Formats: sequence, C-alpha cells, structure tokens
Amino acid sequence: MSDHSIDIKISKASKSKIESVDFNNLDFGKVFTDHMFVCDYKNGAWQTPEITPYQPLTIAPSARVFHYGQAVFEGMKAFKDEQDQIWMFRPEDNHDRINKSSVRMAIPEFPKDVFFEGLTQLLHLEKDWIQKGKGNSLYIRPFVIATEEAISASPANTYKFMIICSPAQSYYAGEVRVLFAEEFSRAADGGVGFAKAAGNYGAQFYPTSLANKKGYQQIIWTDASTHEYLEEAGTMNIFFRVGDTLLTTPTSDRILDGITRKSLIQLAEDTNIDVEIRQISVAEIKEAARKGELKEIFGAGTAAVINPISGFEHAGEKFELPKLDDSYATFFKEKLLNIQYNISEDPHGWRFRV
Amino acid sequence: MSDHSIDIKISKASKSKIESVDFNNLDFGKVFTDHMFVCDYKNGAWQTPEITPYQPLTIAPSARVFHYGQAVFEGMKAFKDEQDQIWMFRPEDNHDRINKSSVRMAIPEFPKDVFFEGLTQLLHLEKDWIQKGKGNSLYIRPFVIATEEAISASPANTYKFMIICSPAQSYYAGEVRVLFAEEFSRAADGGVGFAKAAGNYGAQFYPTSLANKKGYQQIIWTDASTHEYLEEAGTMNIFFRVGDTLLTTPTSDRILDGITRKSLIQLAEDTNIDVEIRQISVAEIKEAARKGELKEIFGAGTAAVINPISGFEHAGEKFELPKLDDSYATFFKEKLLNIQYNISEDPHGWRFRV
Repeated sequence: MSDHSIDIKISKASKSKIESVDFNNLDFGKVFTDHMFVCDYKNGAWQTPEITPYQPLTIAPSARVFHYGQAVFEGMKAFKDEQDQIWMFRPEDNHDRINKSSVRMAIPEFPKDVFFEGLTQLLHLEKDWIQKGKGNSLYIRPFVIATEEAISASPANTYKFMIICSPAQSYYAGEVRVLFAEEFSRAADGGVGFAKAAGNYGAQFYPTSLANKKGYQQIIWTDASTHEYLEEAGTMNIFFRVGDTLLTTPTSDRILDGITRKSLIQLAEDTNIDVEIRQISVAEIKEAARKGELKEIFGAGTAAVINPISGFEHAGEKFELPKLDDSYATFFKEKLLNIQYNISEDPHGWRFRV
Repeated sequence: MSDHSIDIKISKASKSKIESVDFNNLDFGKVFTDHMFVCDYKNGAWQTPEITPYQPLTIAPSARVFHYGQAVFEGMKAFKDEQDQIWMFRPEDNHDRINKSSVRMAIPEFPKDVFFEGLTQLLHLEKDWIQKGKGNSLYIRPFVIATEEAISASPANTYKFMIICSPAQSYYAGEVRVLFAEEFSRAADGGVGFAKAAGNYGAQFYPTSLANKKGYQQIIWTDASTHEYLEEAGTMNIFFRVGDTLLTTPTSDRILDGITRKSLIQLAEDTNIDVEIRQISVAEIKEAARKGELKEIFGAGTAAVINPISGFEHAGEKFELPKLDDSYATFFKEKLLNIQYNISEDPHGWRFRV
C-alpha cells in the first residue's frame, strides 16, 4: 500500500551500515538502520515529511522535551516471511494509541495517512534489515518530542515526529523473576499510566534497579493506593494462569491497553481457554501459589512478545513456578508468532502487508 | 567563591546577543544568555566541565531522554543589588534537590564543587544579563538528560548535565484563578511527584489546557486516590490563609519540597504567624470560603515567587477571594524579595554571594 498523494522527501544514505552488523548477537535497541522518518510540526501543522539517513538531531538545550518530558512513543515490529514478504501486526492500533498518548500529553495528533506512508516507504528502504526466521524482527520506534525552545511550563508549539528502526532478536534472555511492588508505584489514577508517555518509563528505572540488585529482572506494579492489586509490568501487561483459567487486569487510566494483551485474550477465546478480566489481588495469587494452583505468570508486549516468569517475591516471601509441558505461554507465543510470520491463518485480519 | 582546583574549559561567544534583548518585555523562558555550562558523564564519571556559547546540542534520535523521559531539572534565580553584587537564594538546597531527583530517576548525582564552580563562573560571564530592580532576575536552569544511544528500557550509561540561563521578570501576569482537580492527578504515592523529574511537568499540560479553556490559569492538584485533599499546583506549593492561620500541606513522595515553601514557613514563624502543616481537605477550604474565613490562597515557587490566587472552582462551585489590604502574600513576597535583593537583613543565612 502506497499513497502517492503524500509527498515524502527522500535522501538516501550514501552507504549502508548493514555489513557491520552481527544479526546473531544483537543487544536490544542499540543498533539502528540506515534511515529514519522525520516530520516537523510548526505553525499549527505537520510539515512535509522526510526520510533521511539515520543521523543525530540538532536541538536547542531549551527544547521542552528535555525539561518537561513532553514526549510519547510506540513500539512495533516488522517480520519477514519465507517468501520475503514483509508483515506488521495490527499497526493501526499503534497509530491509534500514539494519538491517544499524544492527546494526554498535549501533543498534536499525527495523521494516519502520513504515518502509514512514512512507515511503508521506510520499511521498503530498510527491507534487508528485516531478517527471516521466527524471533527475528525489525523493531520500529515511532516517537514524538516537543522541540520548542522555551522553558515555560506549557505545551510546545513545535514538535518532531520520527520513526527509527532497530533489528531485534528477543527482548529478554534467560529466566525472568519478578518482584511485586510494595512501596514504589508506576501510575496514579487520573495520571498518564495508560499512555506511552516517556516519563512513565524513566520513573521505573530506579525501583527496577533495586529489584535487579535483589535478583529480580522486572517489577509487577501494584495499585498506588493500597499495593494490594496487580497491574502491569511496565514494559508488558501481565497474565496469571490459575488452574486452567487465565487472569488479567482490566485496562484503565493507569494501565496500557496492550496490543499483544488484547490479541492474547482473543486467542484464548478462540481456543476455549477461560479468561477472567478483573482486579487481581496479590493475596489471591500468593494463596493460589501456596495451594499449587498458580501454574504460570507471563508478560505480554510488543518487544517481549510473551515472556514467561519463573518466580516472584512479595513481602519477603519467595515463590517458584512449576515448569510445565502444556504451558499457555508457549502455546500463545507459538500461535502469535505463526500469525506474525505468515505461517498460519489470520482469522482476525491482524496481519498487515507492508 | 571560586575553586581553582576545578578546571573548566571556557569558550566565549564571539559576540553577545544582549543588545537585541528588550528586558522590559520578556516572555518567561524564551530568551537565553550567551553561554551555557555543560558536563558529560561517561565511563562511570563526570568529565571535564565546559562553558561554551549557548548553542544547539547534537544528540542521537535514540537518546534515552527522548524515549523514556530520564531527565531532571532545577529552577534557581540570581539577583543584582544596588551595588552590582550578584546574589542567589539557598542554592545549596537546589543542588541537594537535583541530586535527590537524580537518584529517583536512576541518574548519577552531580558533584557539589563542580556545580558551584560552574554556576559561579557562568554567572560571572553573564553578569550583564542580570538586571537590577525588584522582580528582575536571571532564571537559572540546571538540568540532566540521558544521552545514551539505546532504546532499551533501562538507565543510560551517558548523561549531559547543563546549566542554561534566561533573564526573567515575574512568571505570572494578571489575576490567577485555579481549578481544584477532580479527575486528573499529578502524582502517585510511591511515584516521582517529589522529584523535579521532567515527565511530571509534561503530564500536567493537558489537564491544565482544559482548565485554561474554562478560564483557570492553574490547577491545584488533589490526592490521586480520593481527590479530597489539596496537594500542590504543579509549579508551586500552595498556602491557604484561614482566619489568620496559614495552612500548607506536608511534603511527601508526591509533593515537591519547595525552597520558597520552606522559607515562607520560616518567615511565618519569625513573624509569629501561625502555620499548620497538615492535610488540607477540599471540603474544609470550601466551608471556610462559604463562612468568609478563607482570606487568601497563594502559590510559592522559585519562578512564581509568591503568586496570589483570586478565585477557585471545585465541582461546579465558584469562589472569589476578597482583596485584602493586609495580605500575607504581599507581606511574605516583600520579605522574601528584600532578602533576595540584599535590601534587608538575612538572619537565616539564605543569601549566597556569587
């Protein structure tokens, strides 16, 4: 799909960096492709979009993004099938969501046609960076930053919308254990937790670094008021399997409306797995673990896909989860990847041919 | 005070912009002085600091500050007295606080000696930008941004600490009316509300823009759990005068430990004005307003100094405050400015000669 009514100015990189990249040893988010998509907002309108070589920005030290975190982002992936066709997964939902995030952060919404035309042309240019094989993908990072040179605490008049791309294998390696939050919080009712607002992520780094020191790779956040209810993992939504029922928290103004999350709920319905979308208390999960009824916990998100969790700690109590042959995490991950890589049918029309 | 053990590399601007500035018509935070202070963090240490011409940064689009809001800042002011001496107000507290903010945002702390030496040398270079006369000042913005070129959701390995300066008159012009928050929130318990973390500010822009449309310049935030207790105004702490007693909220992990706020509490004690530092409910303030006992509301912060509020709205009810001859806001503002501009005694040693 290509909309030729949208004029994108393209300056190609003189030489590709691709030869220098070891695709079998990628650290997540450290290597970027040859080009990027850029569109500036000024005088009340998005200007002519450009694709340029991936290069540093020249930006004033007074730009509001540095001072007030007026910035939002999305995470998407492109996959290559055995016929060298490129696919994305529900990208319209990412476009909808970046605009929802933007509204909450007082950033102007980005037009859908320019988003898709920019994405398409960029991915066509970068097609060699998308490696075949399940688990390989091109991670795509659309983001918007406030660029106005003024440090008054109010929304900027100028912005930069960009898309940069980074080849990816899987996000987390090795076993993941998590800490249930008891003191720190991720989001307030009436706040920006549902948005992919930049500041939501930086705010998690310190509590997560404390968890890392205790041997936990991630935190499962609890509600800020009582710390009694489980919410999300910051970069992933979270699922619990108790008996053969899958539990996950409803989305709210604190919790990201994850695309992997809702796809997984649909796949569960398709395969007659019971899903309960409701408040989940720390107490009931610990009780289920003690009784041996808690079979799995896993995270779901674009970067992580589905991330099985092998144990957790809360209030000094440690729990290990069983290793299952019939894991839901494995089952759903396989189902999802088969759709994403154009291996299986796509009954819900989630695949998007680039 | 100048510490010659700290080596600062100085490159002066070839020509000053000062002639082009109309100091009688300054928009807050839009004009910057000729120089800036920059210090990079890499390989686990802060590197040789520099003072350079104020100029754009060259920074990768993948720098973590753009994606995850890993950034903190401070606000300070420099004042010039009638003898052309330059003064600051309790700057050690700003240094302490930027480091507290940094710890919470997983940013390395900045050394006190380099902070003060950089600040001093920068202000000496920019002394002509500090205009005499009460209300005139040089607004000083230290800030730290995460610069590492990597979009994994974890703390950066490289940072930039900077100080930029902007000549200022007063922050708010005209009458200020406020909305008490009923739906949106600023901070969660266990979150980053106490820190000057960039994302705290961008997150307020949208609710504030809705308030602006209703005719209110600011929001007084309430607690996220119940919206029953008044917290702070986002860029200011908040004081209520009921009868002749001053009320203000205790600081917490949701509320900034404001330097103007604590100075004002001290000035009240010095002048035998009763101050109650305790939770303040929306209900009691509305009740006091109905009874005619609510005499004043005002904000206190570095940019705003003391900002009288002339009315408020909550749950559709509007209240106007009386215009007083013996206003605490005017009294405290005068006291504070006289200390800041080296007009009165400084019994607590708050002034700092640059």
